[in-house]
Amino acid sequence: MSTAFSIGPLNQVRRIPGRGHYDFESVYKIVDAAPIGHVAFPSEQDHPIVVIPMLHARREDTLFFHGAQSSRLMKYLASGQPVTASFALVDGLVLAKSLFHHSMNYRSAVVFGVGREIADNSEKLAVLKVISDKLVPSRWENARQPNAQELKATMVVGVTIETASAKVRTGGPKEEPDDVDLPIWSGIVPWITVAKPPEPDSLSQGLPVPSYLCSPIERM
Amino acid sequence: MSTAFSIGPLNQVRRIPGRGHYDFESVYKIVDAAPIGHVAFPSEQDHPIVVIPMLHARREDTLFFHGAQSSRLMKYLASGQPVTASFALVDGLVLAKSLFHHSMNYRSAVVFGVGREIADNSEKLAVLKVISDKLVPSRWENARQPNAQELKATMVVGVTIETASAKVRTGGPKEEPDDVDLPIWSGIVPWITVAKPPEPDSLSQGLPVPSYLCSPIERM
Repeated sequence: MSTAFSIGPLNQVRRIPGRGHYDFESVYKIVDAAPIGHVAFPSEQDHPIVVIPMLHARREDTLFFHGAQSSRLMKYLASGQPVTASFALVDGLVLAKSLFHHSMNYRSAVVFGVGREIADNSEKLAVLKVISDKLVPSRWENARQPNAQELKATMVVGVTIETASAKVRTGGPKEEPDDVDLPIWSGIVPWITVAKPPEPDSLSQGLPVPSYLCSPIERM
Repeated sequence: MSTAFSIGPLNQVRRIPGRGHYDFESVYKIVDAAPIGHVAFPSEQDHPIVVIPMLHARREDTLFFHGAQSSRLMKYLASGQPVTASFALVDGLVLAKSLFHHSMNYRSAVVFGVGREIADNSEKLAVLKVISDKLVPSRWENARQPNAQELKATMVVGVTIETASAKVRTGGPKEEPDDVDLPIWSGIVPWITVAKPPEPDSLSQGLPVPSYLCSPIERM
């Protein structure tokens, strides 16, 4: 059984190929850690491409998106035409002694696939739960469930991932041999995204904060 | 003098148009706050679009990118063909009493422009300083400057923004009238990205951390 995407002209990492990864696990971990993906679709205007950030979730080899039935992006994703989505997380700044070797630590993935509408109601609900569980585990069971009208107004698409690659930079700066003794501070400045304490809405002032929201979370 | 992009078929926010903004200030603030942009370009493979995350900076109506002279994305950006770039920052989760009204707070911008190479050395240096200053103010003056060979290896492009739009969600959840009395916690969970304390490289263990890196920074 395959555990990696084949490397081809579409997904090959060209710049600094040593940072490229093609195994499913590397790609999927980045897709799952990213809260949103940037999804491209063709336009009929002077600028031939539109890119829109979208909430997503993944299960096995399928990316899920949801949106309004009337959304042009959802209609495009459901149409079976090729889909490209880009995901990136910035992990920090890399400061070298030379400006030239300054860099960023990051995890990124580019995914290519083909979408289809998921129209069956029980399958739709299962996908919406995958999306909800990704962002707030246990929320699905503890909020008011979608009714028939809400479910009908929501389009769900699954994009089967055909090929993909990840590109990752970690670690400290690279230096030129002539620079190593320069008295210039070098190192990294890590970045993290954290969830701050929940802030109740006016309709929930008297209600206890649910335990599944109580611990501040490092999100990425 | 114009202070906003004209609204046309390319940049118009279609879904929830009340979240759309077209004034330069709204768009530029989001572009400037985003550490990276997702840049789309056409491919000649079965999947016609590639999207790649790129570090960027902006000055007036121009987006700047830099990369290796040999990079296919840099060559594309320099070629004068249409460029699309997407920027997004997630500000938190919005939890409603109904799953249907769950949402995210975010700031996003989609920018359309045309690129050109910036080949003049003094102009290149000025742009590289804009990029450096965006991420770490005062670093430019305090690191080893680019030499002729490094400058030659670096391609710099400027993309003049022709049109753009921003889309922003803020605030608490929307609720259905029938849901307001449900004993389900609702509210927001803000997310922030912070810079952690700098970690010196092995070559800089004895050096003091520069003052411009000393305060933990809320990045976005």
